[in-house]
Amino acid sequence: SNSFTIATIPGDGIGREVVPEGMRVLEAVGRRFDLGFRFDEVDWSCETYLKTGRMMPEDGLERFRNHDAVFLGAVGWPDVPDHVSLWGLLIPIRRTFHQYVNLRPCRLLKGTTSPLAGRGPEDIDFYVVRENVEGEYSEAGGRLYRGMEDEIAIQEAIFTRRGTDRVMRYAFELARTRKRKHVTSATKSNGIVHTMPFWDERFRAVKADYPDVETSQYHIDILCAHFVQHPDWFDVVVGSNLFGDILSDLGPAVAGSIGIAPSANINPEGDYPSMFEPVHGSAPDIAGQGIANPIGQIWSAAMMLDHLGQPEAAQAIIAAIEEVIADPASRTRDMGGKATTAECGEAIASVV
Amino acid sequence: SNSFTIATIPGDGIGREVVPEGMRVLEAVGRRFDLGFRFDEVDWSCETYLKTGRMMPEDGLERFRNHDAVFLGAVGWPDVPDHVSLWGLLIPIRRTFHQYVNLRPCRLLKGTTSPLAGRGPEDIDFYVVRENVEGEYSEAGGRLYRGMEDEIAIQEAIFTRRGTDRVMRYAFELARTRKRKHVTSATKSNGIVHTMPFWDERFRAVKADYPDVETSQYHIDILCAHFVQHPDWFDVVVGSNLFGDILSDLGPAVAGSIGIAPSANINPEGDYPSMFEPVHGSAPDIAGQGIANPIGQIWSAAMMLDHLGQPEAAQAIIAAIEEVIADPASRTRDMGGKATTAECGEAIASVV
Ligand SMILES: CC(C)[C@H](C(=O)O)[C@@H](O)C(=O)O
Ligand SMILES: CC(C)[C@H](C(=O)O)[C@@H](O)C(=O)O
Repeated sequence: SNSFTIATIPGDGIGREVVPEGMRVLEAVGRRFDLGFRFDEVDWSCETYLKTGRMMPEDGLERFRNHDAVFLGAVGWPDVPDHVSLWGLLIPIRRTFHQYVNLRPCRLLKGTTSPLAGRGPEDIDFYVVRENVEGEYSEAGGRLYRGMEDEIAIQEAIFTRRGTDRVMRYAFELARTRKRKHVTSATKSNGIVHTMPFWDERFRAVKADYPDVETSQYHIDILCAHFVQHPDWFDVVVGSNLFGDILSDLGPAVAGSIGIAPSANINPEGDYPSMFEPVHGSAPDIAGQGIANPIGQIWSAAMMLDHLGQPEAAQAIIAAIEEVIADPASRTRDMGGKATTAECGEAIASVV
Repeated sequence: SNSFTIATIPGDGIGREVVPEGMRVLEAVGRRFDLGFRFDEVDWSCETYLKTGRMMPEDGLERFRNHDAVFLGAVGWPDVPDHVSLWGLLIPIRRTFHQYVNLRPCRLLKGTTSPLAGRGPEDIDFYVVRENVEGEYSEAGGRLYRGMEDEIAIQEAIFTRRGTDRVMRYAFELARTRKRKHVTSATKSNGIVHTMPFWDERFRAVKADYPDVETSQYHIDILCAHFVQHPDWFDVVVGSNLFGDILSDLGPAVAGSIGIAPSANINPEGDYPSMFEPVHGSAPDIAGQGIANPIGQIWSAAMMLDHLGQPEAAQAIIAAIEEVIADPASRTRDMGGKATTAECGEAIASVV
């Protein structure tokens, strides 16, 4: 079908300013490619929490169970602790909808600059594939001797074969669609002695099914260093929940795109809706001023279209972003311009 | 006393080529500053392991218990799994000698270049203080359903109040000796829900004792991004065993010094010897050719002298390194020169 039902969650802070721009661009690209969108918006946020004691209604997710996708702005506000806002909204969506892949492009877009010397768009163009529902982000663990001198805190990281294999398979399948067909595994089996040797074993087992894909593997410490020194080495990088989290901020940082980077939380089987959100947060410091950069949200809309089987429409958005940021007059303040959030969004919508 | 007994462990690969250069420079600086060194060398290494089945004798460390310091090259070789070489030598030294601080300078040395555009020596000059004996590097954990479809691997990270507080205190004390007096804490309390909120609590408690020191704290993902975008923000950065490991490779990478960076494994109380080693590994690919860069080892010797209460001698080594690398003729291949390991070491020894 060419008509999609999208759950939108603007959330907090600049999330509320950039989500409308994402919708504006989706509608514009929809007119060109004959796609229809029905947006079903909710006010789940820290503000809701402060009023009601819940980030979202108890049966909230049930409501979106059959939607085509979730389009999220940003969640988090100074008065609400992260374990409430994130573990009460963002993380339950990822887990309830089995969005076990977090996918982030690390790309130096035309019209932007990398903090690395002498790097151009052809040098930085890879994906980080992050395991998104298990691993180091676990509620298992606790404290001993709480509040006393002898206090001990324990955290368990839990890796399953099913959870590990499926995210690795996703990375290999993605690599197959790309020119270089290369997967890099992020490990730390020299220091993290139970889970990381297991991760390495599964990587060896899974890669046996993809003889056409080249592989490499690095410990997370030196891998971070390589991101800075040799971003051109990478094509698809797969990592655990924590390592993928680190790499998918570091990758956009070396690409100079951390303020505008998108992310996709994907349920590859399509049994549940996937969720698309910019990498940046709610930015309380600039919220409400209409100056936030909407490109991360708009780029996330492009990832959503890709996921919904509309690669041409997705590509049209990326091209429109590149065209618009080439013009200093359409850039927001963070990119050295003076455009408002809406002006930047309108500019992209008008050339999409 | 001005005479020191140093245990030297050249170890594997290029460790054996660079440790002699470190000793050469120590002897040269000793002549100038009237310091004596007795080197007590052992062949503990993967080669020893392949012959004897042990990386070091059972009572090996007992022998060095009263030495002033340990000077290590590199450990690791392709035929020997890391859990043997590292957990059989490097990690037991760190733990048996209560070297609970791993200290690494992240400095853009004069004469070298950073991969970051437009950054000079004044922009990158900070320390990473890594917790070095507990946390995520733990032998607690295991497998369920090993080898089966339902296989699960569990890893426990264990943080104690004593272990957390003491490394934080070290960071604050170090900050006090510096101009900016600033400590940054690496956390991830929004995702790692048991140990990282504990880490944050301890950071708040410890910082209360250092009102003269400024602080900031970032989640590890965005902190890695900030290392690339704003290396000038940092003065002293304190992190857990894993986060400190990542940051102390990333820091030298952004400073352009990863191939020459030193590290110190410190027992601050001086109850046990501390250990000094370069950040680079045994580099099997270039071992035996006499072309390895000895600067990481020599810089580690400078850190050792600092620790032994000889800051002028330490400073003289750093100055000699900077003088020598300014001259392309003294640079080894990795720095674009043609000098051998020994030529580079001799050049530094001759101007120290
Ligand atoms: C070799 C490895 C166990 C080690 C570590 O992670 O501690 C290394 O990366 C280091 O930083 O010294
Ligand atoms: C907000 C936080 C829990 C989250 C994470 O670490 O998963 C964020 O860093 C992200 O990457 O989406």
